[in-house]
Amino acid sequence: MATKRSVNTLVGNMVIAQSGGPTAVINQSLVGAILEAKKHPEIRKIYGSLHGLKGLLEERLCDLRKETPANLELVARTPSAALGSVRKKPTPEECAQIFQVLQKYDIRYFFYIGGNDSAETTHIINEEARKAGFPIRCFHICKTIDNDLRENDHTPGYGSAAKFVAQAFMGDNLDNRSLPGVKINVVMGRHAGFLTAASALARVWPDDGPHLIYLPERPFSMEKFVLDVQEVYAKYGRCVVAVSEGIADEHGEPIASKFIKETDSHGNVQLSGSGALGDLLAREVKEKAKISRVRADTFGYLQRSFVGVVSEVDAREARQVGVMAIRFATRGDVTSGSTAIRRAPGRAYKISIECVELSKVAKETRHMPDEFIAPSGHDVTQAFLEYVRPIVGELPKIGRLKMVPVPKKD
Amino acid sequence: MATKRSVNTLVGNMVIAQSGGPTAVINQSLVGAILEAKKHPEIRKIYGSLHGLKGLLEERLCDLRKETPANLELVARTPSAALGSVRKKPTPEECAQIFQVLQKYDIRYFFYIGGNDSAETTHIINEEARKAGFPIRCFHICKTIDNDLRENDHTPGYGSAAKFVAQAFMGDNLDNRSLPGVKINVVMGRHAGFLTAASALARVWPDDGPHLIYLPERPFSMEKFVLDVQEVYAKYGRCVVAVSEGIADEHGEPIASKFIKETDSHGNVQLSGSGALGDLLAREVKEKAKISRVRADTFGYLQRSFVGVVSEVDAREARQVGVMAIRFATRGDVTSGSTAIRRAPGRAYKISIECVELSKVAKETRHMPDEFIAPSGHDVTQAFLEYVRPIVGELPKIGRLKMVPVPKKD
Repeated sequence: MATKRSVNTLVGNMVIAQSGGPTAVINQSLVGAILEAKKHPEIRKIYGSLHGLKGLLEERLCDLRKETPANLELVARTPSAALGSVRKKPTPEECAQIFQVLQKYDIRYFFYIGGNDSAETTHIINEEARKAGFPIRCFHICKTIDNDLRENDHTPGYGSAAKFVAQAFMGDNLDNRSLPGVKINVVMGRHAGFLTAASALARVWPDDGPHLIYLPERPFSMEKFVLDVQEVYAKYGRCVVAVSEGIADEHGEPIASKFIKETDSHGNVQLSGSGALGDLLAREVKEKAKISRVRADTFGYLQRSFVGVVSEVDAREARQVGVMAIRFATRGDVTSGSTAIRRAPGRAYKISIECVELSKVAKETRHMPDEFIAPSGHDVTQAFLEYVRPIVGELPKIGRLKMVPVPKKD
Repeated sequence: MATKRSVNTLVGNMVIAQSGGPTAVINQSLVGAILEAKKHPEIRKIYGSLHGLKGLLEERLCDLRKETPANLELVARTPSAALGSVRKKPTPEECAQIFQVLQKYDIRYFFYIGGNDSAETTHIINEEARKAGFPIRCFHICKTIDNDLRENDHTPGYGSAAKFVAQAFMGDNLDNRSLPGVKINVVMGRHAGFLTAASALARVWPDDGPHLIYLPERPFSMEKFVLDVQEVYAKYGRCVVAVSEGIADEHGEPIASKFIKETDSHGNVQLSGSGALGDLLAREVKEKAKISRVRADTFGYLQRSFVGVVSEVDAREARQVGVMAIRFATRGDVTSGSTAIRRAPGRAYKISIECVELSKVAKETRHMPDEFIAPSGHDVTQAFLEYVRPIVGELPKIGRLKMVPVPKKD
């Protein structure tokens, strides 16, 4: 429940914008909101703001009623923010400037699709509007591939990114099985390990990788890591590792930044690309574990914007949060809030979308709960797999030869 | 035409193996060969050798007649070498050892699925067998994502890898459009630029990336590269770059190895992972072009083994080269050869599979022809797009908002 208010109807225009890192299904939410808004007569014009708040500050708006339904459906299936995105936290001065623009265009409904930072932005605008007595309804529409929004069982965008990661690991495990060695894959997720954890879905046979999964929720020790790899390598003659880009030592210092500092002091090399962490880990295994074939890949932006790998459940839910944001905003009992996906208890997968207070979603993020992380600290649990499977949906079926051995001849 | 011989029938067992880097469709060729071999009574047992020649040397064979057709079909749709792969050039001593094993298991047909190195291996075995008077028919079955086999219009595995690269760039271009900056993506291909060139398929609208495509076929100049990026950035406010991992300077020295040496001498940092080249290029753009948001991704092994992105044409052709290898081997007019895909002239896409001499495919590779490379040296031509489109097939449809601007109000 967000800010309560008597049920009444606010007539005016709406603006919608996208913010933060794109996802494969963020445009489903946009299109869901546009199509639903058209059903509500109290919403007059439907404006899109280009590149989030930037578009409002620069008065770069587009008329979303001019989009054809067929084109909207095509956009819905297209990854990455169709309106353009931004990473921007508004100052009180910028809020005042934004209110002038909102006033000028008679905008009374503000929708912001994004993650926790975007929820904070929505919260700031809502608070500043209240202080200024500016009548506007502010709603945040949840999305993030990191799956780290509080109040949500999971977030739109995560399922598709998780599917990409799972399919990538399925293939990479097969690759590693074919040409054995140690393979390290760095997965997105600065603070939450959900996306890295989804690599576990790649396992079909008991000896399949990823054999080791390192999450930011557990302190990372380089010594332990090398020993873990050696142990798996001794068992299978190969090892596939999933590593979150956000892994940090026991003091919370990210391994990636430790490395960058180290290299700076040694050789003044400014490593800024994301390949550095994977390369560092590969080098450590090569040198310390004396394994010759060690490779590292960093999945990078492909995880959030690859065309053609989408979880159907994720796409549907992303559409639905867009629809529900409009319904919450026009219902009139609350003047602000954030859409949150809740899962019904029980074995069957069933969700509902609720309206929660902006402050409850803004800024801070959530982490993988303990029951999802194996006691070893480098794997996930069955509970996590049961949690994540319905969000990702069916994965492609793969096969393995029976390989009936031919008895050796003398 | 390969080695001629009178038409006769050689009765005996066959062995098939896979070698070199895996592809998404290499198992289609394996399954095509197995299913076709079952139709030829002169082929008795169908052995699979584990990890290429290694399996023969270690007598690790499996009985492929024990595989069910349903499982074979599942395996065919599974990326990466199902029998395991290897990178190995046999010595004359190893060839003699191999012949002992072949003799012991009454193997008279040898099939090796792989790229130019595997063709060379097949050629060596064939030559050594001839010298030793060992009666065996040796056939190479073409595959490589690099698309660099001589005598072939294109090779199985390329179409699917090219599709992955195209879909990755489609998404990454959208990502870059949403959060503008410079994005550099490093694509596989040590000596031939075909795979990097396929990134051009990602373009749907005139301002779409990749805006710059750097191939190993043209000397790479860091100064020119930075200027090219600046020019595109000035025009679009963003820039997506496709770079082949094999780009080299005017003396043929790979940019990647130049960098690794440099870093070694400066800071004793042994960079071995594949993220290094992308990071280097990103750093150069950041420093020299003074652009703040510069990112690099290295697509890595995902390009050759991702599950779920396959070109249907590629899968079909990969199956067919496996089938044809068996037919060439049992026809009896040649005792060795390599399957080669030839394209019929004319607008309609039509291929045939021919049998060419092993020596014509072995060892050396082919490059992008000049007519596929734009005069600028950092793009492809229309001729290349017409060449590559039918091999890759349909790409997912994406949409873009019409974005009818709202006139600014006073």
